[in-house]
Amino acid sequence: MLDLILTAEFNASYVDAFKYLGAGIAMIAGIGAGIGQGIAAGKAAEAVGRQPEAEGKIRNMMLLGQGVAETTGIYAFVIAILLMFVA
Amino acid sequence: MLDLILTAEFNASYVDAFKYLGAGIAMIAGIGAGIGQGIAAGKAAEAVGRQPEAEGKIRNMMLLGQGVAETTGIYAFVIAILLMFVA
Amino acid sequence: MLDLILTAEFNASYVDAFKYLGAGIAMIAGIGAGIGQGIAAGKAAEAVGRQPEAEGKIRNMMLLGQGVAETTGIYAFVIAILLMFVA
Repeated sequence: MLDLILTAEFNASYVDAFKYLGAGIAMIAGIGAGIGQGIAAGKAAEAVGRQPEAEGKIRNMMLLGQGVAETTGIYAFVIAILLMFVA
Repeated sequence: MLDLILTAEFNASYVDAFKYLGAGIAMIAGIGAGIGQGIAAGKAAEAVGRQPEAEGKIRNMMLLGQGVAETTGIYAFVIAILLMFVA
Repeated sequence: MLDLILTAEFNASYVDAFKYLGAGIAMIAGIGAGIGQGIAAGKAAEAVGRQPEAEGKIRNMMLLGQGVAETTGIYAFVIAILLMFVA
């Protein structure tokens, strides 16, 4: 009977371990948003340097585009949270 | 008989563990959309700096293209959800 | 006899576990489509900024090219679904 309890406990821990590993791995997705949004920021800075009077429009375009690039990072965040607390 | 129950339980847990690991790994796909959408945002900001009066058309093209680039990120999200709660 | 059943069950679980791991790994393919389609979207936005009146033709070309770039992402999605529910 003790064996039964012990094994059940071991099984639960084993599965939890992989949830946490999965949550960590999911966050690797953030690499993409980091690089992409940085490229966008760089191009926007370049564009402002070329056309300073279009600063407002360039800023709006950069922020809109970066917002879209953020989404997969948010998906990864959601999956990590689900893995840790829901799954 | 107890052994049988224990082993069945261990097996089930074992499989669940890899589902969670798989869900985390799937999210790595988000790297691509993050980089690609950021490049699109950068090019759009650049284009607005060059032709501020074409802002609307440039924004539409950027959002349309980013929407397509988002798809594989969404596929990964769907697979992760399926792995965690359905498979 | 019990041992035989137990071992067969363990083997089946072992295989299932790796199916789910494989499904997650397959989705990593989406990185490529994400980056590539984003580059296409960026170049299209750039082209619209240069020739706003050619917007329709530029959009068609972008979507056609992105459709081709999408294929490997869809292959990965199909393989992941097959691994989870059919294989």
